[in-house]
Amino acid sequence: MYKDFKLGLCQMLVTMSKEENLAKAIEIVGKAASSGCNIIVLPECFNSPYGTNYFAEYAEDISDSESPTLKTLKSLSIQYSIYLIGGSIPEKNENKIFNTSVIFNPNGEIIGIHRKVHLYDMDIPGGIRCFESDVISPGNQATIVNTEYCKIGIGICYDINFPEYSWTLSKDDTVGILIFPGCFNIDSGSKYWELLMKVRAFDNSIFVAGCSQARNNDASYVSWGHSIVVDPLGQHENIDEKEGILIKDIRFDELVRWRNNILFRKHKRFDVYRQ
Amino acid sequence: MYKDFKLGLCQMLVTMSKEENLAKAIEIVGKAASSGCNIIVLPECFNSPYGTNYFAEYAEDISDSESPTLKTLKSLSIQYSIYLIGGSIPEKNENKIFNTSVIFNPNGEIIGIHRKVHLYDMDIPGGIRCFESDVISPGNQATIVNTEYCKIGIGICYDINFPEYSWTLSKDDTVGILIFPGCFNIDSGSKYWELLMKVRAFDNSIFVAGCSQARNNDASYVSWGHSIVVDPLGQHENIDEKEGILIKDIRFDELVRWRNNILFRKHKRFDVYRQ
Repeated sequence: MYKDFKLGLCQMLVTMSKEENLAKAIEIVGKAASSGCNIIVLPECFNSPYGTNYFAEYAEDISDSESPTLKTLKSLSIQYSIYLIGGSIPEKNENKIFNTSVIFNPNGEIIGIHRKVHLYDMDIPGGIRCFESDVISPGNQATIVNTEYCKIGIGICYDINFPEYSWTLSKDDTVGILIFPGCFNIDSGSKYWELLMKVRAFDNSIFVAGCSQARNNDASYVSWGHSIVVDPLGQHENIDEKEGILIKDIRFDELVRWRNNILFRKHKRFDVYRQ
Repeated sequence: MYKDFKLGLCQMLVTMSKEENLAKAIEIVGKAASSGCNIIVLPECFNSPYGTNYFAEYAEDISDSESPTLKTLKSLSIQYSIYLIGGSIPEKNENKIFNTSVIFNPNGEIIGIHRKVHLYDMDIPGGIRCFESDVISPGNQATIVNTEYCKIGIGICYDINFPEYSWTLSKDDTVGILIFPGCFNIDSGSKYWELLMKVRAFDNSIFVAGCSQARNNDASYVSWGHSIVVDPLGQHENIDEKEGILIKDIRFDELVRWRNNILFRKHKRFDVYRQ
């Protein structure tokens, strides 16, 4: 049901220039592939600065065969024969914009499209103010993709704040890992990034990975970094805030053992819960 | 809707003697009350050592007016005019045994009975082996009690491992705090007690309190201690493993502010989730 693989989380620095961002994606994915990674992940908004004022300008129509970002991702997945989880990009679709992750298999075929389900609308006095829903439309489904290693549940950033979403992805035993391209800011990142990644892994007896943008202190939105992988016991490895790649061998023997002995997944009492 | 109160978590040392345990409960609840606590909590299995081999021997019929534990709790709640969340005790009911929390108001009336919903059945190679379900029957409902300060959601120990249970308790805006008498062991306590308490508070924008037995190194089951209160931002206060009382002023202005600005509770997408 599972096959071990090498995961590469590309914590790349994102600038104002889409051209530079795509060049950086090519470079960093190439590095991860040359380290033997089978599944490679880019961060949320890897081709565009994060911010509601940027999304329309940087958005692409992913059904357009000339989309520069999609062409880049497709070509990388074929060149290195990898599964490529294309972080997320602003997606233009008719009159709407989505925050969208496109996932490719080693043949350059799209095997999944996840549109961020939970939009980040926050207004904290003295803190961050951000209303994604001013410009972004929400996706309306949980996304699970098939690979030769395991099924993978996909979420984008704020999707991880909702335990019900992680369970929705994790429920099928064939799903071995949840992957969240993300872009927490420094405040929420320092407080909650690791907490949430750890507990979703532990609660669901599953691997969880979060791939962040590197910290860019020149950006209007400064990301936390600290890309992370958590095992089903809640034990984590992460990198710091600088550009880099977190490479991790995902070995499923621990997951299988854990699920045989620790039965959180079987002890749920849906007869008692309410929504 | 809310009224501030002073919470007292009585982390008492539990021994093999029920008589000693009840005497200790009288002493420690008295201390908490003399510090001005309005709502006082005892730990899981406060009248009995924790362990499946003890439950039948220590169990009481809570409908029996001569039940020594219930008489003690009733009298304490009246004497000090407090809400008393009576941790949990082994409860004998017809042919079944439950792990049960009985909650009293300041008039000595029972305002809630919670029977542990999720039974702790674990068999970790090289680690703990415990099958509560060998002797305990599960409760079949989430328990919320009314007080003059706020509504309170009740769970016992392992009930906190399930995010759906905490949401079930938290869903109504009038519930201001979740209280979990608990008895994590040292291994799971050191790894997960704080993590779970923090994330349930943060995910649900609610106060969460966990009241543990003090650590008794002579016991067959050695508890973690570290009773804890977490605010809706996930910020926590706790004590160490020794016998003691965690006293905390629960002030709802932060909860109200948080819920007005951070909208996790409103951003859920039940149209997308599955159970």
